[in-house]
Amino acid sequence: MTTRRAAPGWTQESADEFAAFVAPLSNWGRWGADDALGTLNLLTPQCAADAVASVVSGRAIALSRPITTEPAPDNPAPMLRMMKESGDAAADVGGSHASDWLGLGYHGFAVTHIDAHAHQFFNGQMYNGRAAARVSTRAGAGAGSVGPLAEHPPVGRGVLLDAPAAFGRPWLELGEGLGPAELDRIAAAQGVSVRSGDLVLVRTGRDARAATHGVTNPITDGSAGLTGDALRWLRANDVAVLGTDVQADVMQPGGAPFAMPVHTGALVHLGLPLIDNMALEELAQASAQRGRWDFMLVVGPLRLDRFTGSPVSPVAVL
Amino acid sequence: MTTRRAAPGWTQESADEFAAFVAPLSNWGRWGADDALGTLNLLTPQCAADAVASVVSGRAIALSRPITTEPAPDNPAPMLRMMKESGDAAADVGGSHASDWLGLGYHGFAVTHIDAHAHQFFNGQMYNGRAAARVSTRAGAGAGSVGPLAEHPPVGRGVLLDAPAAFGRPWLELGEGLGPAELDRIAAAQGVSVRSGDLVLVRTGRDARAATHGVTNPITDGSAGLTGDALRWLRANDVAVLGTDVQADVMQPGGAPFAMPVHTGALVHLGLPLIDNMALEELAQASAQRGRWDFMLVVGPLRLDRFTGSPVSPVAVL
Amino acid sequence: MTTRRAAPGWTQESADEFAAFVAPLSNWGRWGADDALGTLNLLTPQCAADAVASVVSGRAIALSRPITTEPAPDNPAPMLRMMKESGDAAADVGGSHASDWLGLGYHGFAVTHIDAHAHQFFNGQMYNGRAAARVSTRAGAGAGSVGPLAEHPPVGRGVLLDAPAAFGRPWLELGEGLGPAELDRIAAAQGVSVRSGDLVLVRTGRDARAATHGVTNPITDGSAGLTGDALRWLRANDVAVLGTDVQADVMQPGGAPFAMPVHTGALVHLGLPLIDNMALEELAQASAQRGRWDFMLVVGPLRLDRFTGSPVSPVAVL
Amino acid sequence: MTTRRAAPGWTQESADEFAAFVAPLSNWGRWGADDALGTLNLLTPQCAADAVASVVSGRAIALSRPITTEPAPDNPAPMLRMMKESGDAAADVGGSHASDWLGLGYHGFAVTHIDAHAHQFFNGQMYNGRAAARVSTRAGAGAGSVGPLAEHPPVGRGVLLDAPAAFGRPWLELGEGLGPAELDRIAAAQGVSVRSGDLVLVRTGRDARAATHGVTNPITDGSAGLTGDALRWLRANDVAVLGTDVQADVMQPGGAPFAMPVHTGALVHLGLPLIDNMALEELAQASAQRGRWDFMLVVGPLRLDRFTGSPVSPVAVL
Repeated sequence: MTTRRAAPGWTQESADEFAAFVAPLSNWGRWGADDALGTLNLLTPQCAADAVASVVSGRAIALSRPITTEPAPDNPAPMLRMMKESGDAAADVGGSHASDWLGLGYHGFAVTHIDAHAHQFFNGQMYNGRAAARVSTRAGAGAGSVGPLAEHPPVGRGVLLDAPAAFGRPWLELGEGLGPAELDRIAAAQGVSVRSGDLVLVRTGRDARAATHGVTNPITDGSAGLTGDALRWLRANDVAVLGTDVQADVMQPGGAPFAMPVHTGALVHLGLPLIDNMALEELAQASAQRGRWDFMLVVGPLRLDRFTGSPVSPVAVL
Repeated sequence: MTTRRAAPGWTQESADEFAAFVAPLSNWGRWGADDALGTLNLLTPQCAADAVASVVSGRAIALSRPITTEPAPDNPAPMLRMMKESGDAAADVGGSHASDWLGLGYHGFAVTHIDAHAHQFFNGQMYNGRAAARVSTRAGAGAGSVGPLAEHPPVGRGVLLDAPAAFGRPWLELGEGLGPAELDRIAAAQGVSVRSGDLVLVRTGRDARAATHGVTNPITDGSAGLTGDALRWLRANDVAVLGTDVQADVMQPGGAPFAMPVHTGALVHLGLPLIDNMALEELAQASAQRGRWDFMLVVGPLRLDRFTGSPVSPVAVL
Repeated sequence: MTTRRAAPGWTQESADEFAAFVAPLSNWGRWGADDALGTLNLLTPQCAADAVASVVSGRAIALSRPITTEPAPDNPAPMLRMMKESGDAAADVGGSHASDWLGLGYHGFAVTHIDAHAHQFFNGQMYNGRAAARVSTRAGAGAGSVGPLAEHPPVGRGVLLDAPAAFGRPWLELGEGLGPAELDRIAAAQGVSVRSGDLVLVRTGRDARAATHGVTNPITDGSAGLTGDALRWLRANDVAVLGTDVQADVMQPGGAPFAMPVHTGALVHLGLPLIDNMALEELAQASAQRGRWDFMLVVGPLRLDRFTGSPVSPVAVL
Repeated sequence: MTTRRAAPGWTQESADEFAAFVAPLSNWGRWGADDALGTLNLLTPQCAADAVASVVSGRAIALSRPITTEPAPDNPAPMLRMMKESGDAAADVGGSHASDWLGLGYHGFAVTHIDAHAHQFFNGQMYNGRAAARVSTRAGAGAGSVGPLAEHPPVGRGVLLDAPAAFGRPWLELGEGLGPAELDRIAAAQGVSVRSGDLVLVRTGRDARAATHGVTNPITDGSAGLTGDALRWLRANDVAVLGTDVQADVMQPGGAPFAMPVHTGALVHLGLPLIDNMALEELAQASAQRGRWDFMLVVGPLRLDRFTGSPVSPVAVL
């Protein structure tokens, strides 16, 4: 008999407690035992058709952070860029070309990316009760991969919840958490209602803070974000996709292993894809200018076979 | 004094001939000496605002091909997928996660990607007269990179030109080229007018052919595509972005070095970004069903620092 | 309670049978509970000092196969070579340089490499009873890594056992196995005695066969090699390192999952490092010419932190 | 007509001056116009046969630095280690294995590696007058690659010149250069004579200094090493291979572009392979203990197709 292994940041007790908390929020079986889309089921074509109503000027804003080759406190293992062809050799005569190669660990705290269900497990299972063992080093994400999300690209009504703006501050502090009450308060301050199937983007002001105080490392320095309780709010509002300018979960400073309840509950129990590390500053300014926090949002995950997610550059159309 | 080097597939004579042909089509200076957007200047917010008018059902279609780890005739050096964390180690208790790493040479004939200006040179220059030497192995694309295209994400009216459907055939033959006359004929058959700032997608039926005859290698087997003359059509219609289900250029079988005039003229002289290797089968069927070949199109290139392009999964909203 | 997982190619029954077979051969604890060198303990400085006696002409032969960027039946995911700097840009004036980058999965059937203890587990343990769980995707080989082998580079008396030469044939057939009797017969035919601490290299003629019949895939086509019984011979002769021109284990055609008893028993129970995919043709010819099958052998594994092995190019000095 | 480009750190004047200085030292044509071995021609089998005379105890010392995944001032882009298979999934029953993948830019200031001729150019040429253009991003080192060095593995008499020990200091200062007079003085202090075909290793005490003062970045902080004048000494003594615990060339602090005359002259004009970033501390202590600075040295470069060098772990046998 093998021993049961507890994940870093978890104990049997905390796992049991979380299991009890999250059980009533579960979407397992809601869209059938074979479902691989989770809350993207809420994102019907009608949502996309309705979302065009929020397009006024047609201004398009990219909601992704730059992906660089330079190490940073939030990016210790940055992208590799290699030139495969003709890097320095433009011919003097005729047409030549340069082609590069990308090496990218896109999860983590720097790169804007979408998490597929296979990114996260709880008690050895992923969304809809699939065995975590279907994800393996050799075969990749044999279930819960980004494939279905890429083939059913998220398009709908985006809603920005700008926490620091609603609180009259330039940014949230590291370690400051947002729960259901705070999320409702922000929506109310903005006069916006979250509807079933919305893609909700929560701004903590991470990049505004970094512009003043420098880039920080969420593991050692902590990070603003959502509390585990926010899962109730996400489920009650039937949010289709949650994007944040951080890693969704609030993190406390100190480098301890983190339980990441939002990641766990959203991906595993709600089947709700997350978009981490979004760039929301320009969208926040534009939304404030037009006094409107909803817009059309389009996300095109790469069709990476058997991956646990994908780097993305979501596009807001205002 | 160093010797002038001719690029593979080019001679001094053919380069001079092409230079004369393409000179009247040039957009250099049209949007200022510092411009880095090229024909994306044609893609105004108004284009995006107008494009929502073509959204009826809200159905979203991903226009990218799957990216696989398996070699294929059109993909000799496929993607690497590595599991960086917890690949096989879902904890029995609590939450754990799996994170993967992507190694991808996205140019070539398999992966759907956008070409930035820095991908292509002619006579040692790129779009707007920038020196090709600004692209280097060490520094990457010091000019003409995908950055500006990612920060100004292409959103507008997409128009599908379905060549084989217009010709009453399931696909074009390998080596079959489309020039201005053919492109006009397809538009007329479909009853669609191409307008300034459109994102034009040309289908050759590559994937339909491959489903029947197997995957081919464009270098040895040839490929359908646009002829160099099509550059006149692209310029006359002020197309903002050209996407194809091939590599834009028609290629003849035999493995000879290719001059790639569409790549050269579009990227260097017109400043027109290309999207290669798109998946257009589902869009073609949907367009035929609704008898309408225009739609809203959103492209979100990754903000890869100093890259010559980016893998993308464009999204059509119908 | 979690279920016990059987490795591909193994059942509880076959694992129990193997455990019983290999128990009397075990070196666990022989050199202390903390030992990380295994049979390299047999390779004393005196072995290296004695080995110089076998050097006559001073001819040095590299015993590694070329590492290429081209896919082959025995190498489906070949090396990546990227030029990081100045790839095409030698300056006209003064000194410039070109620097490349290596991407290499060196395990498998093509690249000459040494396997460290951490490469192989049996019933969840590796050499000296260490838990297999100390090897992880995140942390790499937390125990049993190539580090100790690289810091204690194998230098000593090499002995070539040239199986096809002893049998009067150009190569062994695919699927042909060598057990204790065959190994003794080859040594006798060559008039060589294997001694404690020797580095034994077994030639099957793989590359000679490939030169005539083409490169094969060991998984689908099978491969010559040692039988599980050969473990008795390796232990009885106290061999320090086993090198072969194949992957040590005989493999039968058909693509079935393989139990790999030589890998398992040598690495886990004997603590005996393996060198796979060696190039032994030139050494075989030279040995036959001088009528002597022993020589000085030097292996310099790379000091790759927490790796399960290393590519190597062993050097024979004759 | 294209403009002549000067390499960073060079001017037409300095290039002309260096060309005049190095001309009398050139080995171009010395071993024929087709030669690809350079000074390895001096390393005859007899050198290896003689070298065994310096083996007394048989102690083997690895002369390479650890290769780590952690960034450091001398290693900003460290090795990638990825687990390809079974990283966290040792089966409970039977034999399983773990296989990793290596991503390594081995040139630079951290990893012990051998430079092949193709690593360095002068005035657009490499050793024996080959055109630098034969090295390209697409094709790699089409000439001057590490291949011939790997197929003719350097084996012979190593001689350690321990500069700080001869000077009665623990290490050389950053920026401190060694020319012919200093090299002769060290040899005299040690009572050792350098002979044609020797592999000369020069210790500056880099790692001893780092153990006390921390790791430094040669580009910004400078580094001890050989002066350009040392090329005369290397040529006069017909050294076969030069290894150092730095990057051969002395470097001054400040981050300016460096001319690297030792790299240039040794690789291009003398055809002399360099081994950079060696670990020489243990060898220095052992040599002092036995009062003898020569030993048998074996280097096994990997047979990396069309590479400009290879990571190595040279082995000294004492």
